[in-house]
Amino acid sequence: MKQSRNILNNKIYDIPTVLDDSKNIDDFISLNSKKKVIVVQGLGFVGAVMSLVCANSISEDYAVIGIDLPNENSFWKIKSINEGFFPLVADDPKIEDFFNKSIDKKNFYATYDPYAYKFADVIIVDINLDVQKKSLNDLSLENFDVDLSGFKKAIESIGKNFKDNALVLVETTVPPGTCEKIVKPILETELQKRGLSTENYMLGHSYERVMPGPNYIDSIREYPRVFSGINEKSANKVKNFLETIIDTSVCDLTELNHTNASEIAKVLENSYRATNIAFAIEWTRFAEEAGVDLYSIVNAIRVRDTHSNLMYPGIGVGGYCLTKDPLLASWSKENIFKSVSGLEMSKASVSSNDQMPRFAFERLIKIYGNITNKNILLLGISYRGDVGDTRFTPVHGLYRMLQDAKANLKLHDPFVAYWEENNINIQSNLDDALVSGLDIIIISAGHSIYKDITTIDKLLKLNKLMIFDTIGLFSELQIKQIKEKHIISVLGRGDLE
Amino acid sequence: MKQSRNILNNKIYDIPTVLDDSKNIDDFISLNSKKKVIVVQGLGFVGAVMSLVCANSISEDYAVIGIDLPNENSFWKIKSINEGFFPLVADDPKIEDFFNKSIDKKNFYATYDPYAYKFADVIIVDINLDVQKKSLNDLSLENFDVDLSGFKKAIESIGKNFKDNALVLVETTVPPGTCEKIVKPILETELQKRGLSTENYMLGHSYERVMPGPNYIDSIREYPRVFSGINEKSANKVKNFLETIIDTSVCDLTELNHTNASEIAKVLENSYRATNIAFAIEWTRFAEEAGVDLYSIVNAIRVRDTHSNLMYPGIGVGGYCLTKDPLLASWSKENIFKSVSGLEMSKASVSSNDQMPRFAFERLIKIYGNITNKNILLLGISYRGDVGDTRFTPVHGLYRMLQDAKANLKLHDPFVAYWEENNINIQSNLDDALVSGLDIIIISAGHSIYKDITTIDKLLKLNKLMIFDTIGLFSELQIKQIKEKHIISVLGRGDLE
Repeated sequence: MKQSRNILNNKIYDIPTVLDDSKNIDDFISLNSKKKVIVVQGLGFVGAVMSLVCANSISEDYAVIGIDLPNENSFWKIKSINEGFFPLVADDPKIEDFFNKSIDKKNFYATYDPYAYKFADVIIVDINLDVQKKSLNDLSLENFDVDLSGFKKAIESIGKNFKDNALVLVETTVPPGTCEKIVKPILETELQKRGLSTENYMLGHSYERVMPGPNYIDSIREYPRVFSGINEKSANKVKNFLETIIDTSVCDLTELNHTNASEIAKVLENSYRATNIAFAIEWTRFAEEAGVDLYSIVNAIRVRDTHSNLMYPGIGVGGYCLTKDPLLASWSKENIFKSVSGLEMSKASVSSNDQMPRFAFERLIKIYGNITNKNILLLGISYRGDVGDTRFTPVHGLYRMLQDAKANLKLHDPFVAYWEENNINIQSNLDDALVSGLDIIIISAGHSIYKDITTIDKLLKLNKLMIFDTIGLFSELQIKQIKEKHIISVLGRGDLE
Repeated sequence: MKQSRNILNNKIYDIPTVLDDSKNIDDFISLNSKKKVIVVQGLGFVGAVMSLVCANSISEDYAVIGIDLPNENSFWKIKSINEGFFPLVADDPKIEDFFNKSIDKKNFYATYDPYAYKFADVIIVDINLDVQKKSLNDLSLENFDVDLSGFKKAIESIGKNFKDNALVLVETTVPPGTCEKIVKPILETELQKRGLSTENYMLGHSYERVMPGPNYIDSIREYPRVFSGINEKSANKVKNFLETIIDTSVCDLTELNHTNASEIAKVLENSYRATNIAFAIEWTRFAEEAGVDLYSIVNAIRVRDTHSNLMYPGIGVGGYCLTKDPLLASWSKENIFKSVSGLEMSKASVSSNDQMPRFAFERLIKIYGNITNKNILLLGISYRGDVGDTRFTPVHGLYRMLQDAKANLKLHDPFVAYWEENNINIQSNLDDALVSGLDIIIISAGHSIYKDITTIDKLLKLNKLMIFDTIGLFSELQIKQIKEKHIISVLGRGDLE
């Protein structure tokens, strides 16, 4: 029997062999018989929180069913929700609040059974659509692939079950063209197979700009949104629905006139960010070679409105979006729109960004020399400061290179107890991490605690060692303090050497 | 005898064979005997206006001498200034005002004689430092060169003449490293040759962010500035001097701790802009292929602070800075700092931007077909809207391609009477340009007059033709109006076809 482990509390669930949850779904629907039903497909970082937002709609009382696959990675999330434990750790107190309210209202249920789609007035597609990169070390741009088979299967599952007048709203970041050329034909084929009309269903696209962290819920509810529909009826329905979950008194909804357009908007947005980061990398290395401090240069330039988003140096790009969206876009251009070329610059940005951990590693070796058997402490493994999200964290690449160089590695992160991708437990107590005998400390995530005055005091009590700040965490004053005891080097600051 | 023609009024000046202006300089200095002397080297788009700003200092009464070479391109500027005619046409009324004031005060003189340097307390270097691109059509990144010989000669000319306690302030955009590794050694060698101390002179770098147009003067006087010096004394002197010409009550001066740093800041700033433009090009083509309107997508994304500088589609990049600064930077990295690689992404941006006029041409051909013998009117030849600056205008590339395709070309621009680079006169009366018999009108510069209601009326009176808007000049409403009579196509808008 297959099992699924809750990564938050290690509870083990048996995955049933007979997959039928219809009775529970029927009961849930009866209990919420007067409410419109929303089914959210996918219970990941977006879907789980989107479910809460829908269950706590601004103006409607929805019954919300979250649906995910009965497999090792997802089954525990379904069970956990139904047992009253939200399957994500988040700093946003609204998450717990919203979840508790949905428990009180009994309007949120999770299942693996596609039977749920038959009750849905709105189906929100929030599943992942990943890019397969060949390997961490192979940075050739030609070696990535987009496999749509899982996504197509998920849409088919909707098509086989949904009401022929429901709205399907795709929120997943997809290769542009997907709604029109992939989702629409699948849904219509399935409706036809079922002998139903293809005239009544509605299909739209809208993308969230969710940001895990202390404003997780508000980053969905109170942030401007772009949407589109495959026809006017669909676009209007999307708009009406979004107005019930997004607080349009504080943010705008912008309609684009084609699903291609809103799909492009999403990947363009993230590609722009990825490109601006890649730009900073190139100049980080130049600044180091010229012996100058790129931070002060960026600050001097950022005073211009046209340059206010110029990026600082850093260890790299992580998270779910920036590491793949430019590739989805480029793949679409070549494979869906049959263009003779991809988005070469945007693609190159991903390749460049993927190399950032290697640049950090090379700088370390250049300054420090051989690190074999050296005791190295990495402070922070998540991809963003003050957040416990390790998806595609650049620290992973650095960690692997340090491992390959046979350093003795210790890891600390106050927000990550267990590093899923590397299957190791993480030290979360800073006192236990900052022990004598360390040779090198690498600041690898921008958690505020690391620049706390008490942390600086603790650093100063250690024996002389090298501190390598890969993200510009410390202030000028703190750098001065640290320099009195240790050697400190900051990525993108040539002048400190 | 060599001559120099005033391009503004066609007056011809003989260039003297005996180059001695010392008597006039002595007279000017006597007349201004109590004033500190500033010599501005270079009377181009920056130096000429910088001279006015110095002659109208906020807190000091300076005597200003502008100096340029006695050659065909520059000699007329010297004469024109001394005859009371400013050698630039500008929309900024302050230019005339400042120039008239300097005439009244008799504190601005122009010369070709390096003898002037011996009186200078401050020498501002505002000469050009160009990149030699192999050709318009050869877009290979390997084929550009930076020739420093002219720049070095100009610095030598200062070194042979200047007081050993003067400040030399380089404002020219230079390959990073130039002040330290090129200017400093030249000045010191020349001082040594003259038996003078190398301990007293000062050397700094600061860059303007001047923008020709209606705020020409204020873009120097009231815009934040970055500066640096080769030592503390130099940096302080630069700061004190800048505070006499920049209105620091409305903008900040930012000191960077090395000339390398402020030199990098300048080229980084412009490379960032060039890169963000190149990014837009790639997506312009994708949007066209996907049949969507990139303008509406950009507008939907620009609501985010982090994306507010996302660029719109366009015909290309012109002007003096963005077309070369990334190349100066990359050249410096490889040739001055001996790095194994250049700034590949920034370099690629220039190459990409240089191709924009070709993309516009290709789109035109794709939509229109063969243009041989077609009557085509280009509306606008300058590189920016409402400005008469044709330096490196992208319209040049489009013009050449249209010529090669044997179209019958007419050109209109209200701000450019004579197109120096192509040696042709430009129609400045719009009524005379908008005549019957036209096949295609291309909006090639964003001058406001072209979207004026009276212009739309005139367009609607013409026979049916194709209008190709390469810069998104027209509003939605205007596009609708135009479509009633003509075929209109907009670069980056796939949906109009």
